Amino acid sequence: MAKKPLILVTNDDGINAPGLRTLIEVLNTIGDIVVVAPDSPQSGMGHAITLDSTLYVERVIVDNEKQEEYSCSGTPADCVKLGIREVLERKPDLCVSGINHGSNSSINVIYSGTMSAAIEAGIEGIPAIGFSLLNYKWNADFSAAKRYVKTISEMVLKHGLPNGIVLNVNIPDISEKNIKGIKICRQAKANWVEEFDKRKNPQGKDYYWLTGKFVNLDNGEDTDEWALENGYVSVVPVQFDLTAHHYIQNLNSWNLNG
Amino acid sequence: MAKKPLILVTNDDGINAPGLRTLIEVLNTIGDIVVVAPDSPQSGMGHAITLDSTLYVERVIVDNEKQEEYSCSGTPADCVKLGIREVLERKPDLCVSGINHGSNSSINVIYSGTMSAAIEAGIEGIPAIGFSLLNYKWNADFSAAKRYVKTISEMVLKHGLPNGIVLNVNIPDISEKNIKGIKICRQAKANWVEEFDKRKNPQGKDYYWLTGKFVNLDNGEDTDEWALENGYVSVVPVQFDLTAHHYIQNLNSWNLNG
Repeated sequence: MAKKPLILVTNDDGINAPGLRTLIEVLNTIGDIVVVAPDSPQSGMGHAITLDSTLYVERVIVDNEKQEEYSCSGTPADCVKLGIREVLERKPDLCVSGINHGSNSSINVIYSGTMSAAIEAGIEGIPAIGFSLLNYKWNADFSAAKRYVKTISEMVLKHGLPNGIVLNVNIPDISEKNIKGIKICRQAKANWVEEFDKRKNPQGKDYYWLTGKFVNLDNGEDTDEWALENGYVSVVPVQFDLTAHHYIQNLNSWNLNG
Repeated sequence: MAKKPLILVTNDDGINAPGLRTLIEVLNTIGDIVVVAPDSPQSGMGHAITLDSTLYVERVIVDNEKQEEYSCSGTPADCVKLGIREVLERKPDLCVSGINHGSNSSINVIYSGTMSAAIEAGIEGIPAIGFSLLNYKWNADFSAAKRYVKTISEMVLKHGLPNGIVLNVNIPDISEKNIKGIKICRQAKANWVEEFDKRKNPQGKDYYWLTGKFVNLDNGEDTDEWALENGYVSVVPVQFDLTAHHYIQNLNSWNLNG
């Protein structure tokens, strides 16, 4: 019998999040899994890493202990770094992050702790996927996501991913029978228009809550936003070479040395 | 006389950092500047934003007050969001972040608070630049950087930048006379090999410090690492559409719906 793949599992909503529990349930059917996840919610952490502070990682028993689990005081990217170097005995065959409670489509990929964990694994040369469900609630229904987590994870194990690319998978918040399938997409050009909620604290000092409205200005039918709005699971190949290669020639024409 | 450009200035080392003070000194010669910077160091914060906590921003007087300055309790990305929506009276003509104490070349762009501030401004449609000096020390010598901050900032004001692109500028830690000029580059394929420093706290519990060794596996002479090692200031056009467009066709061949 072929050896089971070793899968590192993490997230950004914290080790007790229902989205992570769903991921564990599915991945237990296809590999040996080890969980290294933040001990508290880390949404919006982007690709933060812990440089000025100590990191703790400890074995925990969360559910039926089919899998090893470790709780980490750091960010999602820290969890992956620690998981690879200090927890796992060999390089994992796959790293899966999520299932995030809330969308990481389009520009959200930039702010996403879920995706930063996947990207960190990608930087380490490990095939990696981030899964997110378009429902921010703690008690969101993850059942429709299971089938897609399984299919896409198995496909990545089968095909591998080239160095420098990880997958960003978003799942619409509709019932399984209404999901039309999977679409390979590009990241839509969208952004948040912030609306700061300004208040006074009990001492009379102004403070703000960051809130905002999501604005999609991209009408392309090849985007993740289009796919999700139309009942598809979106899969975007994401790279961490941020170079805008097509603009290098233009910049050269500025004669910055002139 | 033409109206002076309005420049939003921020960083990730905090409002008192010498690198920021150098940036302010130079930018005061080319525009009207407003500073909104973190009240404490935020290195390695990546593109973190503050979702679960309150944000404070208050007017401070740091030096001779040629410029308005605001200290913010949030991350570099928060500073830009708050600066644009709550502090500035109009959309700035340019956003400049830095000068970072330490490199943000190659893969460091991913972890960089300095660059996340520039990218956040880019998302808002504002031409933006992040500057970094390859010296992590607080008392680093920023004098050689001044000329390049001025030249590149003026060029961006003159030419603008297309939507979706910001500049990542790194400056070698050598004297001005030894800098050979500016090179437009791509991000080198490099990464950190983590070496966790494991210790026991006074209560006997294990903890870690994240340390690591930077490894550049990219021999290209068109990379930022090559430019910096050879005495050039590196300028990389950075995009925040992370889609690996060239890989979409390949993923389609997986027949994920099949």
